[in-house]
Amino acid sequence: MPSFEVTPQSMSFAQPLALRSGASIAGYSLAYETYGTLNAQRSNAVLVCHALNASHHVAGVYAGQPKSEGWWDNMIGPGKPVDTDRFFVIGVNNLGSCFGSTGPMHVNPETGRVWGADFPVVTVEDWVDAQARLLDALGIEQLAAVMGGSLGGMQALSWTLQYPERVRHAVVVASAPNLTAENIAFNEVARRAIVTDPDFHGGHFYEHGLVPKRGLRIARMIGHITYLSDDVMNEKFGRSLRDAAVGAAYRYSTQEIEFQIESYLRYQGDKFSEYFDANTYLLITRALDYFDPARGHGGDLTAALRVAKAKFLLVSFTTDWRFSPQRSREIVNALLDNRFNVSYAEIDAPHGHDAFLLDDVRYTGVVRSYFERIAAEDLQ
Amino acid sequence: MPSFEVTPQSMSFAQPLALRSGASIAGYSLAYETYGTLNAQRSNAVLVCHALNASHHVAGVYAGQPKSEGWWDNMIGPGKPVDTDRFFVIGVNNLGSCFGSTGPMHVNPETGRVWGADFPVVTVEDWVDAQARLLDALGIEQLAAVMGGSLGGMQALSWTLQYPERVRHAVVVASAPNLTAENIAFNEVARRAIVTDPDFHGGHFYEHGLVPKRGLRIARMIGHITYLSDDVMNEKFGRSLRDAAVGAAYRYSTQEIEFQIESYLRYQGDKFSEYFDANTYLLITRALDYFDPARGHGGDLTAALRVAKAKFLLVSFTTDWRFSPQRSREIVNALLDNRFNVSYAEIDAPHGHDAFLLDDVRYTGVVRSYFERIAAEDLQ
Repeated sequence: MPSFEVTPQSMSFAQPLALRSGASIAGYSLAYETYGTLNAQRSNAVLVCHALNASHHVAGVYAGQPKSEGWWDNMIGPGKPVDTDRFFVIGVNNLGSCFGSTGPMHVNPETGRVWGADFPVVTVEDWVDAQARLLDALGIEQLAAVMGGSLGGMQALSWTLQYPERVRHAVVVASAPNLTAENIAFNEVARRAIVTDPDFHGGHFYEHGLVPKRGLRIARMIGHITYLSDDVMNEKFGRSLRDAAVGAAYRYSTQEIEFQIESYLRYQGDKFSEYFDANTYLLITRALDYFDPARGHGGDLTAALRVAKAKFLLVSFTTDWRFSPQRSREIVNALLDNRFNVSYAEIDAPHGHDAFLLDDVRYTGVVRSYFERIAAEDLQ
Repeated sequence: MPSFEVTPQSMSFAQPLALRSGASIAGYSLAYETYGTLNAQRSNAVLVCHALNASHHVAGVYAGQPKSEGWWDNMIGPGKPVDTDRFFVIGVNNLGSCFGSTGPMHVNPETGRVWGADFPVVTVEDWVDAQARLLDALGIEQLAAVMGGSLGGMQALSWTLQYPERVRHAVVVASAPNLTAENIAFNEVARRAIVTDPDFHGGHFYEHGLVPKRGLRIARMIGHITYLSDDVMNEKFGRSLRDAAVGAAYRYSTQEIEFQIESYLRYQGDKFSEYFDANTYLLITRALDYFDPARGHGGDLTAALRVAKAKFLLVSFTTDWRFSPQRSREIVNALLDNRFNVSYAEIDAPHGHDAFLLDDVRYTGVVRSYFERIAAEDLQ
């Protein structure tokens, strides 16, 4: 079934945005897309927040580009689990990202120079503030739901804390209340690979006409390992050699590709280094590191979540070792401690963290049911 | 208790060594150390095989260097679990390593040029062959035991297959019958970081007076993450900030160190890049990738191990996700299928793969008991 056509839009904001770092950003634009129709009561809006390397292009295809499906096109669209025949869905590219919203590759109007590594550090909370302004501009006072996976789930959770009156439901998929030391460690190695690439030039590589591709490749390879489960890697690649024709013989080389998994990772790294901005990678991994709503409450997540007024759906995946089910259960338990309305599904899926982007009948079924419930409860 | 003093030695071999790759190495030296005394029957020798970044300096200290303990000094020495008052222990640096044995930083006598990346690919099987020649030179026909952890355990296992008559016991700690796709993936990222460092110069950086330190740092940081368990990382570092004096405030920086785990990893990476050879890193990770005794038997590990005549002790650690207990159990099961004499201890330890190098009373107790049994059975 061909997907529906969509058109990206952009909204400019002239008023400065104060950031959690103490800095502020004078003026900025956000790239966004919308699917479906806002109802007369303006009560059917769903905001979808993206993770590390995704964008506002959540669903549908661009005219004349049949393979340009959005990153959650299996989940969102007419008749899909998040049904755009009922809901008005908004995808927005976050501040500091590299897909159209103001980011490090744009010119800082105050200096006339490309921001580069001087782009201010942005946090999950800053993104939510910027998203709230976009909703203001679209005339949406309250969301039927905010949803996201991974880092997007952190934004959905943060929405319920920063703007409790504006969120009726939060759908938090494959996420966590903060990163573990191991999560931070993987982010740090990726950042070091980028920053120590000689082509990074302290984050001002644009003016040298260069891209720190070596670092981006390494960063993406590390990322991919952590997105997949050990099991699915063994199933998809195992110890298979790249060149099947060679049969049982090793090449005996330290630098040539020997195993299929190496070929896959190099390809993913190369592809990523062609389109993703290095400074954006630093910013977004740092936003992940910094997110920790319990931090301001002495580590007490229950206390941190107390201000929320939304109902919640949490989803995790059994083989996700980047954001393990245990981390989702921490959120669920803290919500239940507050006697909030919480649904939780732990999906038995082999695909690791990547599962949140893939089709799984139980997973999409849970999301479909939940949005049917939202429609039944809230959109009468 | 101060450790005993030891002296490194070196043995040169003039006869070429045929390698699994089809290449051969004309002449070479192996650095080694011995502890304890070979008995009159020459029946108390224990060979210790090292893992990725270790060496022949297994136990004891060098004269005038009180902090120079060998890497398994807690396990091996007078009165220790592997008691050098009873056993004659040999540590040997593997071919291609960078601690004294012939390796990539030495001159290839055939070209007069430093080997660099042209050093032939060596496998676990090649190392075992080279170790066997060292034993020949030392007049040791049969080992009381061969032992090693991680990659060292692979060598111990391979000894029982390549020289079944020469091994009475094999002690295989925190090891695996081969690498998983995920293991290979981590090795590949580390190798790409090294090889794409501009200072690598195709593996001939020596003649440029350079070292690809950026790549080595990244490689080591990745390694360290995989050596530790998520739990121990959370316990040791958690989300603690580096600068405790700053209290609750983030610095909001993408490049400065914010969290303690970042500081730890950068330090480990820096230290490693000062002493470890980049080409050795490529060679040794490739030896890990290639090891797969079942490969020549259509993947049937039971068939692959059938030739062994040794008795076995396998040890694994519950939180080791690099070489998980499941991988050790695969070996145990294949040995039991052959009705071999196998002891297996799965140690409940929090430290991940690193546990094999650390003190744990159950772990050292198991090894001590096993070597007492060897002494009782074999050394009467």
